[in-house]
Amino acid sequence: MSTVPTPFADTLLGATIAAVVPRDAAAERAARERLDQMTKPPGSLGVLEDVAAQLAGIAGSCPAPLLTPATVAVFAGDHGVHAQGVTPWPQEVTGQMVANFLAGGAVVNAFAAEVGATVVVVDVGVAGPLDPADGLLDRKVRPGTADLAVGPAMTLDEARRAVEVGIEVATSLAPDSGSLITGDMGIANTTASAALVCAFTGTSPASATGRGTGVDDPTLARKVAVVGRAAARVTEQPSTPQAALAVLAEVGGLEHAALAGFILGAAAHRTPVLLDGVIAGSAALVAAALCPAALDYTVAGHVSAEPGHRIALAHLGLRPLLGLDLRLGEGTGALLALPLVTGAARALRDVATFDSAGVTEKSG
Amino acid sequence: MSTVPTPFADTLLGATIAAVVPRDAAAERAARERLDQMTKPPGSLGVLEDVAAQLAGIAGSCPAPLLTPATVAVFAGDHGVHAQGVTPWPQEVTGQMVANFLAGGAVVNAFAAEVGATVVVVDVGVAGPLDPADGLLDRKVRPGTADLAVGPAMTLDEARRAVEVGIEVATSLAPDSGSLITGDMGIANTTASAALVCAFTGTSPASATGRGTGVDDPTLARKVAVVGRAAARVTEQPSTPQAALAVLAEVGGLEHAALAGFILGAAAHRTPVLLDGVIAGSAALVAAALCPAALDYTVAGHVSAEPGHRIALAHLGLRPLLGLDLRLGEGTGALLALPLVTGAARALRDVATFDSAGVTEKSG
Repeated sequence: MSTVPTPFADTLLGATIAAVVPRDAAAERAARERLDQMTKPPGSLGVLEDVAAQLAGIAGSCPAPLLTPATVAVFAGDHGVHAQGVTPWPQEVTGQMVANFLAGGAVVNAFAAEVGATVVVVDVGVAGPLDPADGLLDRKVRPGTADLAVGPAMTLDEARRAVEVGIEVATSLAPDSGSLITGDMGIANTTASAALVCAFTGTSPASATGRGTGVDDPTLARKVAVVGRAAARVTEQPSTPQAALAVLAEVGGLEHAALAGFILGAAAHRTPVLLDGVIAGSAALVAAALCPAALDYTVAGHVSAEPGHRIALAHLGLRPLLGLDLRLGEGTGALLALPLVTGAARALRDVATFDSAGVTEKSG
Repeated sequence: MSTVPTPFADTLLGATIAAVVPRDAAAERAARERLDQMTKPPGSLGVLEDVAAQLAGIAGSCPAPLLTPATVAVFAGDHGVHAQGVTPWPQEVTGQMVANFLAGGAVVNAFAAEVGATVVVVDVGVAGPLDPADGLLDRKVRPGTADLAVGPAMTLDEARRAVEVGIEVATSLAPDSGSLITGDMGIANTTASAALVCAFTGTSPASATGRGTGVDDPTLARKVAVVGRAAARVTEQPSTPQAALAVLAEVGGLEHAALAGFILGAAAHRTPVLLDGVIAGSAALVAAALCPAALDYTVAGHVSAEPGHRIALAHLGLRPLLGLDLRLGEGTGALLALPLVTGAARALRDVATFDSAGVTEKSG
């Protein structure tokens, strides 16, 4: 019997962590073998050969099923740190953009239409009230976080409940989704992301903090200072799940918490999850600290222009598929990566082998 | 009146060069303005904002039409330089892979299915005879090039005729295609590509020559030597269209020639053309030397693992959309980039503005 206590016993979070198993190594080996028999030079699909093998390992079968239909869940929340002047955008834009998502007018909608994905919006903590609408899930844990510049962004209980919102959403979507995609909306949320990156990786605030939507120099200076004040309250990198949750509560956001849970939930249901930008990347730091095996199920869709994102991905050992200098969030970069991931699965499933196609292999 | 003589007068090549006009600057400006009014932070779509503006300039309207349906034309040819032992793959694999494309068993077929593109195969110079088949265009100029290690790969007339094959294919496809995609097949064709890159950019053979399908060290050394012997016969970088055609004939391949023409033909018909790997990149060097304005219509789909590709793209000033260490050719990388390009067009067309969506703009 293990002497390590089960983290978060008797909670959905604890049960979810316990349900995550590593990828199937045998299926992954079978995929590698098949990739080498396909009518192409060995290794010539580059990174996509790793993706194809990973997908087989996730599914526990080779070939793996395609990743369709895909669903992007956009978790929306507000941030008390907005009061510190870290962004020129008014806080009400969070709720206005939620309305825009629901009306189909945002970039996430255009890209989802392009790749055939469905958009679901989850209010996990928008400051103001939102009108009920089709496609909007009301899972508000609290109306925005407290100001992380001056104290904990949320309580431990709130952080856990927000994580569990993400788990529940993933659990409800997984049975009908070949893949899940992370999305986010929250004015000032790159500030919380930078604080999480500092806390989980030990990076300096100046390195991890970026211009987000494109802030000017004075605003960036305020943002770095705020991130520094928040990160300074985290005296060591969290080494246990309990410590990870505490750091999340101290300097994170409600959508970060929900995204961490969304990743855990996807992993528990053995469903691939495509990560978007720095909000998802910092949430993945939380998820990995809560349950390292959850990373087995993640694919980094892209690396954004926000410097903390690259740091987070490097810390996690994830190689992003796209690098287009995107800095929008919403799930946009991950959606654009979906055809690459699905293409890898399709190639593994459909491409002929040298034998079956009557193509001569190279000599030597 | 211009005193510069029309290049290639009274030929399809000459007429095509004359028909290429630059992109529409007014439509491009309108796209930039619209991108700044869309419900997202200015510039937050990164490289895709440049792509969206380019597409508007190509179409001469904002928004631009979507790029569907897309057609990938796979130009197949053989190479006399195969005799020098620059690859472990038998020459007959070129024709075998053509059969595989036509049977739908190759990676290009899987990726085309994934992104909804149609595959057309063009025999511009396969060494052996090919059986007629649906989807195969017989446009053989000669059964493989001569050995570029020891003399001209083809005559000037053959080079021009192969270029014109590409023009004709683009011309026949453009009316029913929202975009054209370059594809290629030809055992030993990365050797010709490296020679073209050296000749058009002045790069050293050792820098421009790579492992292609993954050759071993002795083969790579032979390949570098062969590229060096070929490039040494080109005493200066071509500065006229006539000189460009002469270099193409000296060290190029039939599929390179056809791809150069395919790019020119797409440009003449104001159709966006997505470039695949090093074969397409070296062909684009030829196309740009024949007609600089043709580059206005190109989008670099990806940068391959082959070092000459990066050099060619840098020389042309093209930023690749993907970097996945692909080294397969066939059009595979360009196909994977299609959803990004189409996504940019869709965002420009469909995303709401701050005014229309009732979203507050940032202050300052």
